[in-house]
Amino acid sequence: MKTFDEALSYLVSQAKKTQKTQILPIQEALGKVLASPVVSDVNVPPHDNSQMDGYAINLLDLTHEDTFHVSQRIPAGSEPASLELGTVARIFTGAPIPAEANAVIMQEETEQVGDKVKITAKATRPGQNIRHIGEDIEVGRVVFEKGHRLRAEDLGLIASIGIREVSVYQPLKIATFTTGDELLEPGDRPEKGKIYNANRYVLAGAVPQLGFELIDLGRVKDTLEDTIEAMKQAAKVGDVVMTTGGVSVGEEDHIKPAIESLGKLDMWKVKMKPGKPLAFGDIEGTPFIGLPGNPVSAFATFNLFARSYLLRMQGVKEICITPLWLEADFDWPKANFRREFARAKLKVDETQNKTVVELFPNQGSGVLTSAVWAEGFAVIPEDTTITKGDKVAFYAFNDMI
Amino acid sequence: MKTFDEALSYLVSQAKKTQKTQILPIQEALGKVLASPVVSDVNVPPHDNSQMDGYAINLLDLTHEDTFHVSQRIPAGSEPASLELGTVARIFTGAPIPAEANAVIMQEETEQVGDKVKITAKATRPGQNIRHIGEDIEVGRVVFEKGHRLRAEDLGLIASIGIREVSVYQPLKIATFTTGDELLEPGDRPEKGKIYNANRYVLAGAVPQLGFELIDLGRVKDTLEDTIEAMKQAAKVGDVVMTTGGVSVGEEDHIKPAIESLGKLDMWKVKMKPGKPLAFGDIEGTPFIGLPGNPVSAFATFNLFARSYLLRMQGVKEICITPLWLEADFDWPKANFRREFARAKLKVDETQNKTVVELFPNQGSGVLTSAVWAEGFAVIPEDTTITKGDKVAFYAFNDMI
Repeated sequence: MKTFDEALSYLVSQAKKTQKTQILPIQEALGKVLASPVVSDVNVPPHDNSQMDGYAINLLDLTHEDTFHVSQRIPAGSEPASLELGTVARIFTGAPIPAEANAVIMQEETEQVGDKVKITAKATRPGQNIRHIGEDIEVGRVVFEKGHRLRAEDLGLIASIGIREVSVYQPLKIATFTTGDELLEPGDRPEKGKIYNANRYVLAGAVPQLGFELIDLGRVKDTLEDTIEAMKQAAKVGDVVMTTGGVSVGEEDHIKPAIESLGKLDMWKVKMKPGKPLAFGDIEGTPFIGLPGNPVSAFATFNLFARSYLLRMQGVKEICITPLWLEADFDWPKANFRREFARAKLKVDETQNKTVVELFPNQGSGVLTSAVWAEGFAVIPEDTTITKGDKVAFYAFNDMI
Repeated sequence: MKTFDEALSYLVSQAKKTQKTQILPIQEALGKVLASPVVSDVNVPPHDNSQMDGYAINLLDLTHEDTFHVSQRIPAGSEPASLELGTVARIFTGAPIPAEANAVIMQEETEQVGDKVKITAKATRPGQNIRHIGEDIEVGRVVFEKGHRLRAEDLGLIASIGIREVSVYQPLKIATFTTGDELLEPGDRPEKGKIYNANRYVLAGAVPQLGFELIDLGRVKDTLEDTIEAMKQAAKVGDVVMTTGGVSVGEEDHIKPAIESLGKLDMWKVKMKPGKPLAFGDIEGTPFIGLPGNPVSAFATFNLFARSYLLRMQGVKEICITPLWLEADFDWPKANFRREFARAKLKVDETQNKTVVELFPNQGSGVLTSAVWAEGFAVIPEDTTITKGDKVAFYAFNDMI
């Protein structure tokens, strides 16, 4: 049996980064992974500019008088003349600071006096209300490294340095199919002894959410021949093949012999709960990941193992999730030699400015409602008990997307 | 000036829920909002079934002997006969428990002895390794309420109760356009006195990420006539019109008079930083939200105000974000009468099992790099100073999607 950490680091070490890249306009690049760094060749802001609507001034002039002629008007986007000394310039947010000016007085600290302007500000300092050239980004700076996954705010930053397109990795294609005579599809009439397929639909949501493309080859007859055929087909169309179920020690499973006839397969029992068994192999050169058939185990191993492997294949540099160390609002009296990933959510105690972790009452791994109720996993380390008030690591589902 | 809470609760109270619904197959419903509750008309699991590969037995028989004839074989998906007393049944994970059996002995606790099976388990109890009918979900249970936004695991749960399609609200259409002569589009040659449009691209990511459709009408000439025309067009094609910039008190802004000529406009200075000014209005019956032009302020007000308003219009019931109360790894010595949303990220101190909040060094609102560096907002309440070690509320960007 491998520990969780051993299994994860081995799996990630085996991930071969995709080589397929594409150029996309930034507005289509949300969630994509950069295949080249983004380097700025401009300064942001490109010039000293005003943070306020108000009046540009040279503060030295304020030592002599407080009421000034308005010698020019500088809207955003214009190119101002040098500030005539002894005067002020009307200026708007974002507009360039004229030469000779060294501060902006905000409108609310001025008064109109005839056709002149009186400065009523109590305190002033050089540079006030001015954003300086390059203050945000200087020419030559690596704004995002290769391997960064783009968020909405990142698209804005790339736009702000004038870049219209980025080089990103093409989304991985994850091929899957469903086997198992005991499975019905939603919409089918219930049948005694059969259960509805849940994993197929979890993957239909979870795979695109991570930015990958799901290729679902549908239902496959539960025979060795059909399973081998489907495996071959999946390995041809997908960058990765992923299935759920059929990898336990039971005799009814065709996934294992199918892979073994086409390539090689590692079967692991990982010291984690929920989660074992996990299978990892190779079908004629295409990697294979076999998740457990139990929906909670499939959900957990997808998020805790497959996610990291796939993101690494997709070229993502930072695949770790920042754990939240928070107080347990529960007791966990019985230590387990396996690491437990308990379905949990956060509860806020406003009066004490405290966020605590509470557990779903039934941690049985058959219960998919636990994953739906939960907002993340509370990690119970191996051979450990927890007493209410202890700190536990919480991995939020929202951070796994 | 409105407080943050006043502004937010007023804005949300004004949101009119969309009436447009559609029926979608569950595999296309990720991120959509339920327009009807999902009610189960099956039990999950549908029958008592085995959690393990092993042998089904009636434990009373174990009091007489420990080695048994295997009288039947029950794969998943089959319909077993009643268990013959004095025998065991070979059973596989997920397979129905035969009548008369009251426990499953896992394979690892048995031994093959000729054509019989010897039970080597040390302790047994009735019901062991059996998942009971309805244990996860009972017939009639409301699995998801109207107004729930569907995640990957939710799709799996809906599938597991045999439901193939759901009624959801059609995604809101958010119409936008860009004004402002000072703005260049990425790819344009730099020009003195002009800056690149960032907000358009933040919205291109942030709007679809929340499940809405962005209709970008492009650049509009910076005149009152063109702005009015664009507003009319946007109000016609969108469920909401949203723009950035052009709502400050400066004279160069046409957004304000354009809206006022077509409907009504509220201009707010909200006691928050970054963030003011915020505009909210109505264009011939279509709601209008005007975000600030400054990219950090636009990003903050989108996430802290517009998000809640739009989700409520989309029919989402739970729009609040659970704050994480964590230790500040910073001092905030200067109290402000406005609530500050400081760009922050989390840092883990592994040796102390502690997650702390650190701040971006430059909290100037011009600096979009702060939003990119950050993972969330640390909330500095009004008139409050913070000392390192104090608890602060952290709102994670990942929780805002």
